[in-house]
Amino acid sequence: MTNPTITVGNGAEAEATDVADATASPRHHLLDLDDLSASEISDLLDSAEGMLEITGRDVRKTPALRGKTIITMFFENSTRTRVSFEQAGKILGADVINVTASASSVSKGESLLNTVKTLQAMQIDALVVRHPHSGAPYFISNYTDAAVVNAGDGTHAHPTQSLLDLFTVRNHIGDIAGKKIAIVGDVLYSRVARSSIIAFQKMGAEVTISCPNTLIPDEWQLGTVLDESTGFDGLKLAKNVDEAVDSADVVMALRIQQERQDSGHVPTLREYAERWGINSERMALANDDALLMHPGPMTEGVEISSDVAHGAQSVVEEQVRNGVAVRMAVLYALCAPGKSTRVSSGDEA
Amino acid sequence: MTNPTITVGNGAEAEATDVADATASPRHHLLDLDDLSASEISDLLDSAEGMLEITGRDVRKTPALRGKTIITMFFENSTRTRVSFEQAGKILGADVINVTASASSVSKGESLLNTVKTLQAMQIDALVVRHPHSGAPYFISNYTDAAVVNAGDGTHAHPTQSLLDLFTVRNHIGDIAGKKIAIVGDVLYSRVARSSIIAFQKMGAEVTISCPNTLIPDEWQLGTVLDESTGFDGLKLAKNVDEAVDSADVVMALRIQQERQDSGHVPTLREYAERWGINSERMALANDDALLMHPGPMTEGVEISSDVAHGAQSVVEEQVRNGVAVRMAVLYALCAPGKSTRVSSGDEA
Amino acid sequence: MTNPTITVGNGAEAEATDVADATASPRHHLLDLDDLSASEISDLLDSAEGMLEITGRDVRKTPALRGKTIITMFFENSTRTRVSFEQAGKILGADVINVTASASSVSKGESLLNTVKTLQAMQIDALVVRHPHSGAPYFISNYTDAAVVNAGDGTHAHPTQSLLDLFTVRNHIGDIAGKKIAIVGDVLYSRVARSSIIAFQKMGAEVTISCPNTLIPDEWQLGTVLDESTGFDGLKLAKNVDEAVDSADVVMALRIQQERQDSGHVPTLREYAERWGINSERMALANDDALLMHPGPMTEGVEISSDVAHGAQSVVEEQVRNGVAVRMAVLYALCAPGKSTRVSSGDEA
Repeated sequence: MTNPTITVGNGAEAEATDVADATASPRHHLLDLDDLSASEISDLLDSAEGMLEITGRDVRKTPALRGKTIITMFFENSTRTRVSFEQAGKILGADVINVTASASSVSKGESLLNTVKTLQAMQIDALVVRHPHSGAPYFISNYTDAAVVNAGDGTHAHPTQSLLDLFTVRNHIGDIAGKKIAIVGDVLYSRVARSSIIAFQKMGAEVTISCPNTLIPDEWQLGTVLDESTGFDGLKLAKNVDEAVDSADVVMALRIQQERQDSGHVPTLREYAERWGINSERMALANDDALLMHPGPMTEGVEISSDVAHGAQSVVEEQVRNGVAVRMAVLYALCAPGKSTRVSSGDEA
Repeated sequence: MTNPTITVGNGAEAEATDVADATASPRHHLLDLDDLSASEISDLLDSAEGMLEITGRDVRKTPALRGKTIITMFFENSTRTRVSFEQAGKILGADVINVTASASSVSKGESLLNTVKTLQAMQIDALVVRHPHSGAPYFISNYTDAAVVNAGDGTHAHPTQSLLDLFTVRNHIGDIAGKKIAIVGDVLYSRVARSSIIAFQKMGAEVTISCPNTLIPDEWQLGTVLDESTGFDGLKLAKNVDEAVDSADVVMALRIQQERQDSGHVPTLREYAERWGINSERMALANDDALLMHPGPMTEGVEISSDVAHGAQSVVEEQVRNGVAVRMAVLYALCAPGKSTRVSSGDEA
Repeated sequence: MTNPTITVGNGAEAEATDVADATASPRHHLLDLDDLSASEISDLLDSAEGMLEITGRDVRKTPALRGKTIITMFFENSTRTRVSFEQAGKILGADVINVTASASSVSKGESLLNTVKTLQAMQIDALVVRHPHSGAPYFISNYTDAAVVNAGDGTHAHPTQSLLDLFTVRNHIGDIAGKKIAIVGDVLYSRVARSSIIAFQKMGAEVTISCPNTLIPDEWQLGTVLDESTGFDGLKLAKNVDEAVDSADVVMALRIQQERQDSGHVPTLREYAERWGINSERMALANDDALLMHPGPMTEGVEISSDVAHGAQSVVEEQVRNGVAVRMAVLYALCAPGKSTRVSSGDEA
């Protein structure tokens, strides 16, 4: 549980850090996995191993982030993600304060910027942000020296979700390099898909996606492999779901957003289930010990059948459990850089 | 403050426990008082004595549940009950995370079941559930090995409220057996009434209820005593409130739900107050030292007059105070079974 | 960080304290700065110095209020103020429980009074109240022996905001006595203005206000000095903003409430900015090292220009930071009177 040297995502936001209080320890952010090298990702996953061990203890508590303040600022509802971060922070001994959009003074005309500056002035250590607009956490990170963690921004990114996906796969399969990952569903509009494609490719996996051709950019074409110009070099666009799932080591089903259907991108849910739903017949095309993943919440009977969702190959609940450990690793790396001495004295028993 | 051996309500939900993680300590639930024996209830009340002592300390804190995570999941508003559970958990040193229905992803199409499975996967220790639908906590308990505590479900049960009623009466009167308990008000639709009738009868008290005949089941009749077939063997249905209160050791007034009047079950609130409201004249019919109870929130001037509500016989505020102690006892019994060693080392001072 | 003897605001609410549990330590309240002497205010500011030092530590945590329960009860949204109090309480080691109006059972017909009595019965130590109605915290303080802290009531008072203003000025200028304080904006309807005028005058400062004549009481007149009969003896009403700002040591701009414009009290926002907005030209009229303050949230371009808001003289973010320290001092003074022994053993490191 030591990870004192890692710095996470200190690219574009270096300027903001430079103008920050010089006496504060250097802050960094986790905005997307783009900014991280494979080695930095591996370090985080290694740290998460130790964190997972802590979450399994009878007394789940360490003083690692005691005296630190973490604020969750959710402009979108997400019980799953907020509770996961809140628990991660509390297990590490931090104080966690929740702010939701409806409870914020945004409604009083205070700009997002002023809200962030206010929280910054309170000397908080980390700001976990969920926002419906892509890029909002980047904007915020320019105006605070608190560590900003992107907990999902619009259709853009959800980096801790992707880290927990990697962590879950690594724990089952070991080295991810060379493995075949099939991602099926609402790829174009899913921040989970985008972040996970980047993450799995960065770790050397071969990623194949399958989705309705209305859910990929116009310039892409099913049955092809993307080149570097697309930003997803080597990503395979399967002709159909069977091709994607064939011989896969991991099958990840994504939630189909109701809004897509309303906008005509997707046929009826029944037809969607028939053509892209993951069921036992399709799982039979994958490797015998292939993992079945889903970022949740699942709509059983649509993108995933109930027997598969709760079957032997499903690691869906394990993903949730690993999410707490991965978020502990991220919060620890961001809030306690170079301060491993506070941790090395052992946990309070 | 030791109660290491008690197990609470391990009847119908044994199956769920069986399929749970074998390495976890056995979990049990508190769904209703039906499942508990008189001796188990007495054990909980004994434990609450110690908890009450702790709540009266200048430093109200013990490490008994340190490193445990308790989630309150309220699908209905109740400041009173939620704050009581939150304070109980925090005094015991647990981490408490609040989830409300409006903040949950239920609105995103995630089913109650998936929400519960998600929280379960985060390895939480207790799930305190308030839900407008009778039976919801039972449903939930089948899908989690966290301890489920029913904090009020529809018109069904509110077991910690009944436990605090018992505790309050015991502290004043001693042995409850043989005492006369009068419950006046919205009995048919009140989860408090249902749970409390069961609880007081189980402890040997003689329970008499009084209410409009529109608020009891059609097959019941005022002026009779129920038999075993009703599930409330020996419950007396008084002809009128005076008969119920006469010589009572305890008079419990229940809140009349506005919805009842809207549905025609109850006449005007003014008429209700005249015929069933507890006032000083009616209290004079009870024993001299009879206790006046109300589960709150009170509508003064309707089911209870202000002078009685705040008079010398009223133990309404004491009920609230005892609620914290009783909930500490319940959370401790459920989250730390057989782990008294962690507690026996004494509280942090 | 010792302040064992101070008692805060024990005037009108003495009666409530008298009827409270005799074994409880005497409780007092912070309802407005009217009740405090200059010396009591100075004591609080001295205590806040020590608290500010704690907030700057790497591990921001003391056990000073361990085992105490603080409830924030907000009937109005205010992320800024609620988070500040929550962080203050948590740094001091207290348990903090949030209650919001929408989450309270006020909607179930429970009166404010019953809510307060319920929380009182749970033996909480402090109740931090924000309420849209002037006087609500006074009402509440009559029915609880918990310490009531006014976190803003209607147009009446916001005492911790004024304390942080004083604290910020003192830290920069030293002795406040004899200094010129210019307050510009929505004075009549601003609880901040009212509390701050009282506070600065009490500390011996010369306070001048400037605002549209529609925003002062009818019986007041711009260009005059108020006498004792107004309750603001010596307060100068400047003819215009330039006169107010001239040679000032502190310039405080207030937010103009949108509601004022809707009601015709204020011309267009553009005209308001021209006639009363604080910009660099106006700041040039003040002393060279004059401080620029704003209670936030700022509407840049209206009551304050962006360059001034973020310029070298602005102490707006410092006000926010100091707010945490001042609230720590208040909570400590109210919740731990005469209990310095618990603190003197040193902070946990």
